[in-house]
Amino acid sequence: MTNSPRRTQVVIVGAGPAGLTLANLLRVGGIACVLLEEESRAFIEQRPRAGFIEEWAVRALERHGLADRLLEKAEIQGSFEFRFNGARHIMNYGELAGHRHFVYPQQYLVTDLVGLHTDQGGDVRFGVRDVRLHDVDTDHPAVTYEDSETGLPHRVECDFIAGCDGARGVSRGYLTAGNALLASHDYGIGWLALLAEAPPSATGVIFGIHPRGFAAHMARGPDVTRFYLQCPPGDSEANWPEERVHEELRIRLEIPGGPIALGALIEKRVLDMRNYVVEPLSRGRLHLAGESAHLVAPIAAKGMNLAINDALLLASAIAAHYEGDDAKLAGYSDACLERIWQYQEFSQWLSEIFHGPTVTATADPFQTRLTEARLRRLLKSKTAAAAFADIYTGKHADF
Amino acid sequence: MTNSPRRTQVVIVGAGPAGLTLANLLRVGGIACVLLEEESRAFIEQRPRAGFIEEWAVRALERHGLADRLLEKAEIQGSFEFRFNGARHIMNYGELAGHRHFVYPQQYLVTDLVGLHTDQGGDVRFGVRDVRLHDVDTDHPAVTYEDSETGLPHRVECDFIAGCDGARGVSRGYLTAGNALLASHDYGIGWLALLAEAPPSATGVIFGIHPRGFAAHMARGPDVTRFYLQCPPGDSEANWPEERVHEELRIRLEIPGGPIALGALIEKRVLDMRNYVVEPLSRGRLHLAGESAHLVAPIAAKGMNLAINDALLLASAIAAHYEGDDAKLAGYSDACLERIWQYQEFSQWLSEIFHGPTVTATADPFQTRLTEARLRRLLKSKTAAAAFADIYTGKHADF
Repeated sequence: MTNSPRRTQVVIVGAGPAGLTLANLLRVGGIACVLLEEESRAFIEQRPRAGFIEEWAVRALERHGLADRLLEKAEIQGSFEFRFNGARHIMNYGELAGHRHFVYPQQYLVTDLVGLHTDQGGDVRFGVRDVRLHDVDTDHPAVTYEDSETGLPHRVECDFIAGCDGARGVSRGYLTAGNALLASHDYGIGWLALLAEAPPSATGVIFGIHPRGFAAHMARGPDVTRFYLQCPPGDSEANWPEERVHEELRIRLEIPGGPIALGALIEKRVLDMRNYVVEPLSRGRLHLAGESAHLVAPIAAKGMNLAINDALLLASAIAAHYEGDDAKLAGYSDACLERIWQYQEFSQWLSEIFHGPTVTATADPFQTRLTEARLRRLLKSKTAAAAFADIYTGKHADF
Repeated sequence: MTNSPRRTQVVIVGAGPAGLTLANLLRVGGIACVLLEEESRAFIEQRPRAGFIEEWAVRALERHGLADRLLEKAEIQGSFEFRFNGARHIMNYGELAGHRHFVYPQQYLVTDLVGLHTDQGGDVRFGVRDVRLHDVDTDHPAVTYEDSETGLPHRVECDFIAGCDGARGVSRGYLTAGNALLASHDYGIGWLALLAEAPPSATGVIFGIHPRGFAAHMARGPDVTRFYLQCPPGDSEANWPEERVHEELRIRLEIPGGPIALGALIEKRVLDMRNYVVEPLSRGRLHLAGESAHLVAPIAAKGMNLAINDALLLASAIAAHYEGDDAKLAGYSDACLERIWQYQEFSQWLSEIFHGPTVTATADPFQTRLTEARLRRLLKSKTAAAAFADIYTGKHADF
């Protein structure tokens, strides 16, 4: 890396969906960038995360030539089923919205975007450490880092820094150390995320709403299935031996005529359901995108879609800057926040449906009845279902 | 009252909208009833309460010949305006739903229903006290009371008792002393309800959403206007001298080009926003209807509509009983609860829009942003507005 350029237009910190989408969009638009990533290429190409991409996002990637393999390989889903009180209730949201989900694991999209970018000569530097941002409040910011292989220090000067380094990255700190607000919400709920060597029990997603807690089934091919089980926040995986997992999945998800196929567990991880939003997303020449700016609990599968939205908006705003128009950069944060807060609001609304009927020592029967009523209205009212379909698919780019 | 019959088919306790609607429906259906009321006829005919009747309820009253004067006198409203951030946003919900509100003060409906019932020989006994219910778990219940004028005790035996005596009546106690659940929710919010000698500042309702707190304007004819101001729960009216009320109304409701006409205050009353639901509404031969069974904070003007719905369902179930079919009585509670919980859910959802952006020491910026996003979606998304219109007008009797 000793020959790496020491000056570029945009330094992107973090090669997740936000950073990689942005790097590709800038490259396609003829803007130079350097993409820095702490992990190795092999690591990020295998790291499992989200998997539901909304149709508007797919179409946007397609317009920029970034969706060829996605369009070829992804499974398209436009319905799911709720199961509760022993019955099945199908939600054909795709038909209502005219928009669907493309099911495509995040690591596949990451692999595609890394390949596209490097094949075209994109400058991606893996295995960096001790990343620091400098002079973000000036017109000549810079990023320094150490190459973890050689131990050598590097400095890249630039016009803009894109902080795409996720929930645990350094970028966010530069915002919150300034005047940004960090608004957060903890649901006080955990999900045990599971992968099992089991064939699918339905073609798509099953959401099980049950007094013992929420559960979900998501098909992941012929041999592996993803499951979720609501659990106390901060619960230990050790509390969930395979036998207990299988029993709870059966109780919460099975209905007459709707058995659940089970199998050996190959992954078991407790996720705490929490959210945050940094507001604004910009400070001087530093702009956040993706989970560095906002975390949304995986309740409605919104995270990766927001990351792609941020990247699309930032790439377009930076391009406008080089054409002499800074209005889009000035409006970048507000433009992102519109979809961010819509998705946060929807996720909390849906979370209340998923978790409301759970009977615990602290459960409030009034709130339980409210969320049951909300679910019934969703299933019985055509206008309620249509409104749900629009926001679940994120159909309107401009809310 | 010494000649009052000592046996009837149905004793109705309480002459509010639920009890009076039920009495009239039973009379029209040829079922004998005795209606007991603690207050005087003059008192209940002047007591101000709710004023928004949903179109489905008006049509149901009309079908039974109970809506002649209402249809002649009521003002029909199908839109309101939100005001926030200095701008006006009209919601034409009536057009979306095809259903509207009939604005008709509760005391007018009460006056109409008392008149209709007594003119046709209905047995209404005012000024009763010490009402007690007996043997509700048997097939031969009875109600005893004292005539407050003569001090003489009375006993009426019957087949059914309808407990329509509101939030402070005795009927609910017979349910909760049994196996019924009393689910409740306190918003922790107060509304200062005001009547002012002021001309209307808009043809209909204005909902003002403001960091200092919610405010509302409701036209009540050429000379008097109703206002609401959010205040701490349990606040004292003494804390709100006229000058402070006027200042807050201006701050929270006025926008450029949208002044608010003010005037001397003729009523000032703090309401605490709280809800409850008794579940089930029935015990043996006792059936609750109206606010004895459920209180819904006046956020979405749902209370009187639920009372009318209960009365319609109970009258029809009692009529079916005398035709040899007890299924409707057995299903009475569940049938009521469907609309009750839908309206409670909607009222809470709307309350979060009304009160969410209020900035207080305990306000949570995350929740504030969520409710602002909810309001923006309502105003920008056609499907969200259509879903709102349906539930705001209660269009679907069967959710």
